[in-house]
Amino acid sequence: MAGSTLGNLFTITTWGESHGAAIGVVIDGCPAGLSLDEEDIQIYLDRRKPGQSRFTTARKESDKARILSGVFEGHTTGTPISIMVENTDQRSRDYGKIKDCYRPGHADYTFDAKYGFRDYRGGGRSSGRETIGRVAAGAIAAKILRQLGITITAYTRSIGDIVIPENEYHYDQITENALYMPNNDYAARASDYLAECIRKQDSSGGMIECAITGVPAGIGEPVFHKLDAALCSAVMSIGAVKGVEIGDGFQAAAALGSNNNDSFRLDAGKLTKATNHSGGTLGGMSDGSPIILRAAVKPTPSISQPQDTVMRTDCQELTDTTIEITGRHDPVIVPRAVVVVEAMTAVTVLDLLMRNMSSRLDSLIKFYRS
Amino acid sequence: MAGSTLGNLFTITTWGESHGAAIGVVIDGCPAGLSLDEEDIQIYLDRRKPGQSRFTTARKESDKARILSGVFEGHTTGTPISIMVENTDQRSRDYGKIKDCYRPGHADYTFDAKYGFRDYRGGGRSSGRETIGRVAAGAIAAKILRQLGITITAYTRSIGDIVIPENEYHYDQITENALYMPNNDYAARASDYLAECIRKQDSSGGMIECAITGVPAGIGEPVFHKLDAALCSAVMSIGAVKGVEIGDGFQAAAALGSNNNDSFRLDAGKLTKATNHSGGTLGGMSDGSPIILRAAVKPTPSISQPQDTVMRTDCQELTDTTIEITGRHDPVIVPRAVVVVEAMTAVTVLDLLMRNMSSRLDSLIKFYRS
Amino acid sequence: MAGSTLGNLFTITTWGESHGAAIGVVIDGCPAGLSLDEEDIQIYLDRRKPGQSRFTTARKESDKARILSGVFEGHTTGTPISIMVENTDQRSRDYGKIKDCYRPGHADYTFDAKYGFRDYRGGGRSSGRETIGRVAAGAIAAKILRQLGITITAYTRSIGDIVIPENEYHYDQITENALYMPNNDYAARASDYLAECIRKQDSSGGMIECAITGVPAGIGEPVFHKLDAALCSAVMSIGAVKGVEIGDGFQAAAALGSNNNDSFRLDAGKLTKATNHSGGTLGGMSDGSPIILRAAVKPTPSISQPQDTVMRTDCQELTDTTIEITGRHDPVIVPRAVVVVEAMTAVTVLDLLMRNMSSRLDSLIKFYRS
Amino acid sequence: MAGSTLGNLFTITTWGESHGAAIGVVIDGCPAGLSLDEEDIQIYLDRRKPGQSRFTTARKESDKARILSGVFEGHTTGTPISIMVENTDQRSRDYGKIKDCYRPGHADYTFDAKYGFRDYRGGGRSSGRETIGRVAAGAIAAKILRQLGITITAYTRSIGDIVIPENEYHYDQITENALYMPNNDYAARASDYLAECIRKQDSSGGMIECAITGVPAGIGEPVFHKLDAALCSAVMSIGAVKGVEIGDGFQAAAALGSNNNDSFRLDAGKLTKATNHSGGTLGGMSDGSPIILRAAVKPTPSISQPQDTVMRTDCQELTDTTIEITGRHDPVIVPRAVVVVEAMTAVTVLDLLMRNMSSRLDSLIKFYRS
Repeated sequence: MAGSTLGNLFTITTWGESHGAAIGVVIDGCPAGLSLDEEDIQIYLDRRKPGQSRFTTARKESDKARILSGVFEGHTTGTPISIMVENTDQRSRDYGKIKDCYRPGHADYTFDAKYGFRDYRGGGRSSGRETIGRVAAGAIAAKILRQLGITITAYTRSIGDIVIPENEYHYDQITENALYMPNNDYAARASDYLAECIRKQDSSGGMIECAITGVPAGIGEPVFHKLDAALCSAVMSIGAVKGVEIGDGFQAAAALGSNNNDSFRLDAGKLTKATNHSGGTLGGMSDGSPIILRAAVKPTPSISQPQDTVMRTDCQELTDTTIEITGRHDPVIVPRAVVVVEAMTAVTVLDLLMRNMSSRLDSLIKFYRS
Repeated sequence: MAGSTLGNLFTITTWGESHGAAIGVVIDGCPAGLSLDEEDIQIYLDRRKPGQSRFTTARKESDKARILSGVFEGHTTGTPISIMVENTDQRSRDYGKIKDCYRPGHADYTFDAKYGFRDYRGGGRSSGRETIGRVAAGAIAAKILRQLGITITAYTRSIGDIVIPENEYHYDQITENALYMPNNDYAARASDYLAECIRKQDSSGGMIECAITGVPAGIGEPVFHKLDAALCSAVMSIGAVKGVEIGDGFQAAAALGSNNNDSFRLDAGKLTKATNHSGGTLGGMSDGSPIILRAAVKPTPSISQPQDTVMRTDCQELTDTTIEITGRHDPVIVPRAVVVVEAMTAVTVLDLLMRNMSSRLDSLIKFYRS
Repeated sequence: MAGSTLGNLFTITTWGESHGAAIGVVIDGCPAGLSLDEEDIQIYLDRRKPGQSRFTTARKESDKARILSGVFEGHTTGTPISIMVENTDQRSRDYGKIKDCYRPGHADYTFDAKYGFRDYRGGGRSSGRETIGRVAAGAIAAKILRQLGITITAYTRSIGDIVIPENEYHYDQITENALYMPNNDYAARASDYLAECIRKQDSSGGMIECAITGVPAGIGEPVFHKLDAALCSAVMSIGAVKGVEIGDGFQAAAALGSNNNDSFRLDAGKLTKATNHSGGTLGGMSDGSPIILRAAVKPTPSISQPQDTVMRTDCQELTDTTIEITGRHDPVIVPRAVVVVEAMTAVTVLDLLMRNMSSRLDSLIKFYRS
Repeated sequence: MAGSTLGNLFTITTWGESHGAAIGVVIDGCPAGLSLDEEDIQIYLDRRKPGQSRFTTARKESDKARILSGVFEGHTTGTPISIMVENTDQRSRDYGKIKDCYRPGHADYTFDAKYGFRDYRGGGRSSGRETIGRVAAGAIAAKILRQLGITITAYTRSIGDIVIPENEYHYDQITENALYMPNNDYAARASDYLAECIRKQDSSGGMIECAITGVPAGIGEPVFHKLDAALCSAVMSIGAVKGVEIGDGFQAAAALGSNNNDSFRLDAGKLTKATNHSGGTLGGMSDGSPIILRAAVKPTPSISQPQDTVMRTDCQELTDTTIEITGRHDPVIVPRAVVVVEAMTAVTVLDLLMRNMSSRLDSLIKFYRS
C-alpha cells in the first residue's frame, strides 16, 4: 500500500503540500446513506485552524472544505468522497535559507535523502497542513461512530511539566480554554508557561489523551491488526508524535500483576471490569471499557533562536551554518493536534468495526439470508 | 488485509494455537538467493524458549523449526517460505475452570466476544507461543539486514522500578544474565525483585529497548506508513505491550524545543546530528542516526493469587466467581519478549527498505537499463 | 501484497513446491463457527487427483490434507486455518536435462530470469501441485457459500474443437465422465480425440465454464475490485489459463446493443432479466442472475515430441538444444483444473460478499445497535 | 483495499461522478524526479474526448486537467499527485425516466441494489467519465515506462464482425482514422457499419488489442499477482469489457501442445522465442517477448430504441415499463476505450516493475551498499 493511504475498508488517501494549489483527501469505502454536507467537515477543520488564541499562529487560513464527489442529495453514495481545501496563500515568496538548509527537528533532510530533492515551501508534504485531509476524513468517521453510540473525546493532558492529575479532569471545561485542557486552572498555568516559552524564543511539548466510549467488545483483528496496534500506528503517523500508550501504558512496566490485572465482575447481569488499567483492550481487541490512549507530542521544532545546522550550497556541497527560523510559529503543537488525534482515532475504529462484521458465520448467514 | 498477515513486500503470515497440532509462519516476498537453513531459525527460537532461568517457566518445549518450502539447495528461491514447529504437548487434559472463566488480563473474554467461542487450551491463539512464527520470520529478516550492514539489538531496560540509567549500559553484558539486561548489577537486583514476586504469587512488568543501527536515511513511507508508525504498530501487536516510544518519547512531552531539536553538523563531510533526541527518525523517515525504540510490557497476567472474575455456566449464563491460575508461570514476560521485539523490528525495517527501492526515477532507470 | 496471498477479508496464502517437503495454504479471515473437518477438504482435493482416468497421469499421489490450526472442537475459530499436504514422493532423482533446459511452454526460463535460479524439481512452485492449497481453501469457501444459498458448478465445456453447444448441457452428466463434461456423448468424442493426442505424443487445450447461482445483487466493489475483474484475476492466475470471459464475453464484441442488452422485467413482483448476455454482472456488480464465466486452458506444455529449446551449460552459457519430456503427462489439463476454477471462484465470491456487508450505513447500525 | 484504489506500489485512486463538481485521481508512489506538467496529462485525456468523429458523441467536454500536488519545479516529488478535471456541465436538468428506471445494460440496478440509492445523473460513478482519472494516471505511468524502453500501443482490432487479420496490421495507420484501427480500409468498412447502426438506433461491440514491448523477462508476482492476472483484472475493470485474453487466448483452447508451445532459440547469444503463442508471459511472468492482450468490449448499452425495463414508482414499488434513451450516444465504445486500455496496462506494468526490484538479495545489497 502506498504511503498516503490508510485503512482497509474505510480508507483515506491524503494529498497536498503546504504551499501547493490545494490539499485534500479521498475517502473510499464510506458506507452509503450518511447524511453529510460541507458544514459537517468544516466544524472539524475549524478546530485545527490557527489564529484561535495567542498560542497558535495568527496566520490567516480560510480552509474552506469543498466536497467534490461521493455525496448526492445530501447523502453519501458509497463511492469515493473527494474533499479539497484550496491553498489561498500561494504567492511566490523568498524562502531564503530554508530552501537550502535542513531545519533541525524538521523533515527537510530526510525528504531530500529519500527523494533526491524536496518541495521546500512551508514544509511541503510534512507541513501540519497535511492533517487537513485527515481531519476531514475524521469528521465523517466520527459522524458515523456517533450513530453507533461511540464517542471520541481528545484533549490536552499536559503541556511541559504541567500535567492534569487524573482525578481533576472536568470534561466540560475542554472547550472553555484555548488549550483544550479539561481543567481551566491547569490551562491558565500552561498559558503562563507558554507565554514564557515565547519570550525565550522557545517551544514546548505536551501530551494528548483520547477516550473512546461505546465500542462493543471484540473489535480489532489479531494478531497484527489489533485495535491497539492500529490506533498506535495511526496516531504515531501524526507529525510530532513520539510515543503512544494505551491504558496504564508505560506505568504498567513498573506495576505488579496483582494490581495491573482488571478483575471482571457482573453488574446487572452484564460483564464489566472493576478497574481499567488495560485501557479498554485485551489481546488487542476492545473489552467494552473506555479505550484510553495517550500521545506524546514533541515541542514545535520551529524556534527563532539560532540553531546549528547544515546547508546545501549552490554547488550541492554541504556546509555548516546556523539558522534562525523567522515568522510566527505556535509555541506548542498540542492544542491544534487534539482534533487530529481524534480524527485518526475515529478513522481507525470505524475501519475495524466494519472489518469485524464478517467475523462470525452466523452474522454472515443472518445478513444474506434474512 | 487479514489479521495475521503483516507487511507489504516482505510479508509474514503466522498461524497456530498454543495446544493445536503445530504453529508456524509463511514468509512471502523474501528476496531470492539468501543462504538459509533451519539452524538460522533455531538460534532465534531458542532465545524465546522457556526454561532458561528460574524466571522463565520450566515447561519443556522442544520447538524444532522445519523449513517446508521456499529454500532449495541452501538458498531462498523467492517463493513463500513455510516454517513449522510441531506442538509436542497436545495431550488432552483437564482445563478446569479456565475453560469457562475469563482470566483477568487475558484475551479470553474478548475472543469469546468477537468469535462466539474460543480455543481455551493454553490461551489458544493469544498464547505467547504465537510469537514462534514471528521470531522465525524475524530471524530471516535480521539475516538479510546484517548483509546490508544493519544490526538490531534489543534488551531489557527495566523490570519493575529497576531501570538501568542510560549511561550505565554495557551491551556486552546483555547475554551474560538471564534477563538480557545490559548491566549485570541491575540484572542481579531485578532477579531479587522477581524472586520476591514469585514468593508473593505476583508478577512484574518491565521495559524493552531496541537499537537499530546502519539504516540509511530516508526509509519510511509518509504520511501513514512512516518508519516510526510501522515500528510502533509491529511492536504494539506483541501480546503484552502497552506503550511504544521513539527517541525521547514521552520525555519529549515535557521538553523545550531548544533542547529537543537535534542540530545537524558535518563530520568529515558527512551530515550527522549532535544529539539523538529524535531517536533516529525525522518526519517519519530514518535520519541516519541509530533508531531507538522502547516498549512497555505489562506484568504476566497469570498469577496464582485468587482473583475475582466471571464465568460462563453450563447453561451459558454469566456468574461471579474467583480463579487461581495454577501451574508454573513466568513472573515476568520481558526477557522472553526481547527477541520478539527484535524480530518485529527486523521484519518492519526490511519491508520498508524493500519498499524504498522504487522511490526515485533514477533508481528505477538504473535498475532496468543497466 | 506479496505474490502468494489473495483476498482482502477472506485471504489465502499458498506455499510449497512440487517436490519440497510439503505444500499448503493458510486461510485467514474465515468466519468463526463453520463446522469443518479434514474430510470437507479431502473431497475437493480428490477431485484434482491424477490417476482417475486414462487421460490423467497414473502417478500415485496420496495428498492427504491435515488441518493444523484454526479449528477447535469441529468448528472454525476465526483464527488462521493452516492446511498441509505432505509430499510423499521426494526421493532424490536424476532430473537430467530438465535441470538445465528451459522447457517450452513452462515457467523455467521466467523463474530463472526473475530470481536468478529456480527449484527445477518437477516444476517447483509453478507445478500444478501448487493448486492443492487453492483447492483446500476453495473447499472451505464453497462450504460457507452453500450455507448462504450460493452454488458453484464448473465443468469442461470443450476439449480441442469439441465444444458442447449451450442447449445440450446435461449437468447431471458432469460427474458421469472422466472429463467432467455436461454431456456424455461429447465426452466420448473428446476421449477419442485425446487418445489420438496421446498416440501423436501431443496434447490438447480446452475450455472450462463455471456457473455461480444464488449471489444476491450488488456484490463487487467498483471501480477496480469489481466482481468480474476479481473473478478474472483469480481464474487467470491458474497456471494454464490464457483467457477469461463473462457472459457472452468475446461474442459481445460482434454483437448489437439491441441484442446484447438484457431487458428487465418483473416476475412475481421480483426484478429479473429476460436474458443473461451480461453473465450476471452489470457495472461490475452481481445483478442477481447466474454468473457465467469461461476460461481458456492451453494444451499441456509437457509433450514427449522433441522440441527445440535452449539450455544453460555448466559454465552458465546458453546453447541451443532439443528436449523430449519423458514420463507420463496428462494429454489435457482441463479436467483436473475444473475444481481449481471452482475453488478460485468460491474464494473470490466469498471475499466480496464479506466486503459488501459494510456498504450501507443502515446495515452497520443494525449490526451494532441491535 | 477499497474499491477505487488499484496497485500496490504505484497506486491510483479515482473519484468522481459524471455530473458531480469534478472528477479526478490521486496517484501515490510515483517515483520522484519525473519531469511532468499538465500537458503530459492532457495529451492522453484528449484521446478519450468525445466529439472527435461522427461516431463519438458531439457533447462538448473541455476536460482540462489540473495538477494540484506532488509536482514541484516541474518534477514529481514522490508525494501523492492529485489531478482534477472540473465538470463544466453540471446544470440541474430533468433526468426524466432515467431517475427511476433501470436502463438495460447499465449499472443503475446494481448500484441501487448495493447502496440503496444512486446518483442517477449521467450514470454517476459508472459513467465513462470515471475513466478520466485512469487515463491521467496512465499518462504518468506510460511516461515512466518510455524512459525504461517500454512502449504500449493499443488499437481497435474489430468492430462488429469486421476484424483486421493479424497479417494486415499497419501500425502507422492507427492515428489516421477516427476508430484507431491499424488498417484504414477496415476502418472505412467499420465506419459504414457504424453509420448503419446509427440509422437503426443500435450500437456495436468491438475488440481492443494492446501490445507491450520492452518489458524485461521475469516481471509479475506468482502465484496470484501474475502479470497476466493483474493485466486482466485491470482491463476487465473498465466498464464495458466482457473478456480478456493473452496471446492466443481462447484459440489456445482448441490448439495442440506441439503447436501452442513456443520453442526457445538463441539469437546472437540472446534467448528468444521462435513464436509468441504465449503472448509474452510464461508462468505469469513476462518472457521478454511482446505482451499481447485483447479485450472484448460490449456494444454501447444506451440505444434509442424502446427497451423493456422496470422502474421504481414514487411509492418505491417496481413496475414494468419501456424506456427510450434519448440524447446522442456513441454507437460504439471501442475507439474511446483504446486509451483507457493503454492506461490500465501502463499502470499495471509499472506497478509490477517497481515490485520486482526487491526480488533478489543481490539487487538489494547492490542498491544499499554501493
